[in-house]
Amino acid sequence: MVERIATAVGTPNIALIKYWGKRDDRLILPMNSSVSMTLDEQLNTRTSVLFSEKLQADTVYINGTVQDINGTEVGERMVVLDILRGMAGDKRKALVVSNNQFPTGSGLASSASGLATLTYAAAGALGLELQPRELSMVARRGSGSACRSMMGGIVEWRKGDKPDGSDSYAEQIIKPGEWPELVDVMAILTESRKKVSSRAGMKQTVQTGILYRSRLDYVEGAVERAIDAMRKRDFQALGELIMRDSMNMHATMLDTWPPIMYLDDSSKEIIYKVQELNQSEGRIVGAYTFDAGSNANIIALEKDVGKITDMLEGLGSVKNILKLKMGNGPRRLGDGESLIDGTGLKPVA
Amino acid sequence: MVERIATAVGTPNIALIKYWGKRDDRLILPMNSSVSMTLDEQLNTRTSVLFSEKLQADTVYINGTVQDINGTEVGERMVVLDILRGMAGDKRKALVVSNNQFPTGSGLASSASGLATLTYAAAGALGLELQPRELSMVARRGSGSACRSMMGGIVEWRKGDKPDGSDSYAEQIIKPGEWPELVDVMAILTESRKKVSSRAGMKQTVQTGILYRSRLDYVEGAVERAIDAMRKRDFQALGELIMRDSMNMHATMLDTWPPIMYLDDSSKEIIYKVQELNQSEGRIVGAYTFDAGSNANIIALEKDVGKITDMLEGLGSVKNILKLKMGNGPRRLGDGESLIDGTGLKPVA
Repeated sequence: MVERIATAVGTPNIALIKYWGKRDDRLILPMNSSVSMTLDEQLNTRTSVLFSEKLQADTVYINGTVQDINGTEVGERMVVLDILRGMAGDKRKALVVSNNQFPTGSGLASSASGLATLTYAAAGALGLELQPRELSMVARRGSGSACRSMMGGIVEWRKGDKPDGSDSYAEQIIKPGEWPELVDVMAILTESRKKVSSRAGMKQTVQTGILYRSRLDYVEGAVERAIDAMRKRDFQALGELIMRDSMNMHATMLDTWPPIMYLDDSSKEIIYKVQELNQSEGRIVGAYTFDAGSNANIIALEKDVGKITDMLEGLGSVKNILKLKMGNGPRRLGDGESLIDGTGLKPVA
Repeated sequence: MVERIATAVGTPNIALIKYWGKRDDRLILPMNSSVSMTLDEQLNTRTSVLFSEKLQADTVYINGTVQDINGTEVGERMVVLDILRGMAGDKRKALVVSNNQFPTGSGLASSASGLATLTYAAAGALGLELQPRELSMVARRGSGSACRSMMGGIVEWRKGDKPDGSDSYAEQIIKPGEWPELVDVMAILTESRKKVSSRAGMKQTVQTGILYRSRLDYVEGAVERAIDAMRKRDFQALGELIMRDSMNMHATMLDTWPPIMYLDDSSKEIIYKVQELNQSEGRIVGAYTFDAGSNANIIALEKDVGKITDMLEGLGSVKNILKLKMGNGPRRLGDGESLIDGTGLKPVA
């Protein structure tokens, strides 16, 4: 069989209405639908995949380090290789070399970016020609939110109802060019690793949350309203939904047992500063949203980015500020950008 | 009519299952029942009250400063004077002199202590002989949680159902001497004033909370289970209920619009340290609970106080540690301890 190295680049997404909680841990079926914005390539994952007869076992390098994939979370995520091999009728083992251009495990959605890019590259290496919807369902099995990074612009992940997950996939709602003014101002506050992984935190919330059910009652309507606001390019309505959903999710975490607390004094300071800015202008200038980490994402319109970066620059806790536009989703790179050595057995030096 | 200066001392209480939200703002009827522990006199309010023909208007000194009572929150709380005057058929104006032996407005329940003590002293000054239940209903009108400081030991405030509030009062569940081992280790983290008063925060939660309804579904059962655990002297069951209820309340605050955030990095550190201590001992050694402020109260049994204070002393953010036992509720002080000058028109120098 032909041996083909496929290399791709993909990006994180920032959820505007959050995914938090699974109804099926193995298939990674979410308790609720979610909406996100796929980001541009300033933060990205580059991944090369090769399926080869020469390999005795799947071998995975992330950021230059070979990974233990036996019984580990990284190993579980490699289920996407098995699914794609099954689709292709191919039993060869894979060499995966993946590099993140941002801190791993710091709430910067490295798993979404990583698994979307891996799925995209691995499908290419196997010569599979899959639709974005099919790719998103494969990526979902590796990391739920990865399904949303499989396409560009504004993306909805419909929770679906079927037990086999065949209706739980991502769909593009708005193309990047259709609302180019919408941006994400990301304030990087810390690179420290999270105390609780998203995966463990979600499980704990579903199992022990007292208030969590009430979030589920709320959130499907919020997804609909957010999509409606985006279709109307109504940033005022969208901004409030974004902020409320983020706080609502963090509230359900605080209420689990034991409590999960991702927000810290630096994130609180940003929340207060954004509220002040919005109050002083009498409109929503920026809408903060926090994932399972203490970095801040402030969604805004291009014309207001200066006001937001000025505010952020005044804060001692902000290490770095990025202005991210909507990205296009994963794409293939040429052979010259392969991360796999000519021998097909190890990363390039 | 006889002019009588009555002086009393009263104390704060720490809620074990919290009161958060009113169903009637004027009568101060709570959305849910609550349970608290009245604390001993290490923290206290001393108040002298005199009703006199010589006064043209109610005059209120708190911590040596005369208060503006026209259209202010302090003024609203003085409704207890009107209620007691109504009961006594007395129209004289009052001089109130009240001193808190702890920081006002820093989440240390100064309003509970203050209004319970004021009600107790004012009833005395008017010569009213009221039962604790009646006194608790009057104090409730000044500050909801003050009704629980009207008696000692473990106290339940039953929310009641009647629109006139006649069944919304406090009752003693356990006398101080019946479970003397139960103590509150209070870690004072800050004396800064709260960003949002409890009164405003509750109103906002009731009006805008998405998750709040779900707290109400939960909390009546939690009150019952906490009382049951206390009657059985089952600290393990009680401790978990205390911690979960505190986090649950703070979660509903985070989810209001705009978000209310009383917990900070210092409180988070204490939460993590208590969790670690409990984990390492394989039992609940201490149960943290936070009111609408960032001070920590750690409920524990006397035998474990050393372990908790050792842990707290290692934290840079802890300014002061108090070990508080259950108190007995308000009591009258002798004339020698009056805070009102012999002229009856001003505080003692």
